[in-house]
Amino acid sequence: MSTDQHKIPQATAKRLPLYYRFINNLHHQGKLRVSSKELSEAVKVDSATIRRDFSYFGALGKKGYGYNVEYLLSFFRKTLDQDELTKVALIGVGNLGTAFLHYNFMKNNNTKIEMAFDADKGKVGEEVGGVSVYHIDQLEDMLKNTDVAILTVPSSEAQNITERLVEAGVSGILNFTPARITVPDHVRVHHIDLSVELQSLVYFLKHYPLDEEE
Amino acid sequence: MSTDQHKIPQATAKRLPLYYRFINNLHHQGKLRVSSKELSEAVKVDSATIRRDFSYFGALGKKGYGYNVEYLLSFFRKTLDQDELTKVALIGVGNLGTAFLHYNFMKNNNTKIEMAFDADKGKVGEEVGGVSVYHIDQLEDMLKNTDVAILTVPSSEAQNITERLVEAGVSGILNFTPARITVPDHVRVHHIDLSVELQSLVYFLKHYPLDEEE
Repeated sequence: MSTDQHKIPQATAKRLPLYYRFINNLHHQGKLRVSSKELSEAVKVDSATIRRDFSYFGALGKKGYGYNVEYLLSFFRKTLDQDELTKVALIGVGNLGTAFLHYNFMKNNNTKIEMAFDADKGKVGEEVGGVSVYHIDQLEDMLKNTDVAILTVPSSEAQNITERLVEAGVSGILNFTPARITVPDHVRVHHIDLSVELQSLVYFLKHYPLDEEE
Repeated sequence: MSTDQHKIPQATAKRLPLYYRFINNLHHQGKLRVSSKELSEAVKVDSATIRRDFSYFGALGKKGYGYNVEYLLSFFRKTLDQDELTKVALIGVGNLGTAFLHYNFMKNNNTKIEMAFDADKGKVGEEVGGVSVYHIDQLEDMLKNTDVAILTVPSSEAQNITERLVEAGVSGILNFTPARITVPDHVRVHHIDLSVELQSLVYFLKHYPLDEEE
């Protein structure tokens, strides 16, 4: 696997965790091989895209045979560093934060929410989804070797908390607040804006009617 | 505005609601014009991309002057059909569903969650974020002229509920369950998988360190 992964297009990279999950499912079902068509139907990505994505990693499949599930699995596990655990902190145990904590991120993957923080003293000391909730004032004391934070605080707090996270050494932030946050160049932010996602779907419905496509 | 919007790349289309929101903010702040650099800093999209995106709509800006905020606003409002309300139903009033209902989608935009459904009779009749919760058995009776549904049910229910939504005439589904759902060709599904988003961030942190980029 000497592929230079820096050359994988970001759009391909984004689909890797999705591929991994479904190949893992197939493996659990005892399947030995899978065609790009089957994979396509399972992950809802067209098969041409799947073949192109896989081609960046070298010839993983054979024509007429498809892909070997076990080989794909070990390949993706390695590529996605599934054996290396990334520690995650969640900031803001409101409804969205609580939903996250109950969602089992450990299932077949390499991330674990290890602690949660909230400004509400009534929540401090509780366990939500098996994760202990600390007071936001403890952030700097508790965050050691935590690379990633999930931000589910109110918008008005987003920038302030972000600065504290960065100061504490966090290098990746999954921002679920509507606020666009400013970070130093070495920090990566992925922003998921629920309202933008909904508007985007509506826009696509109106302007890209599926009956007219392809 | 005779631009054939079917030719806008989907990546551009996805950014439109984001642009709209920030241009609206600028307008509320009384700003008359904005440079692509300022816009870039606000929405965290590089300015070359912004200029290219805007170019699909014709010459909206002037070199050295930037963009006229009021013109941009009216343009995006029209493009995004901000004056036309899309009715949305939310299925599954758990933590994630509740977070959605409290999130004010009506702020400056064209979507409104009009009703929510849940299988738990204890929730039926409640109002969450100003939205009434109905029993899931009432789905077919209540959904009239509802185009879009947000799916925040347990994974195991996702496909079954999807089929009922499609049968009731829903043409767009924002799927927040980890399940990949199968729909007829004319139905559009946008899938937001929280676990995949987190894994994707971790992958990017490891393989695309920002210090090395650009």
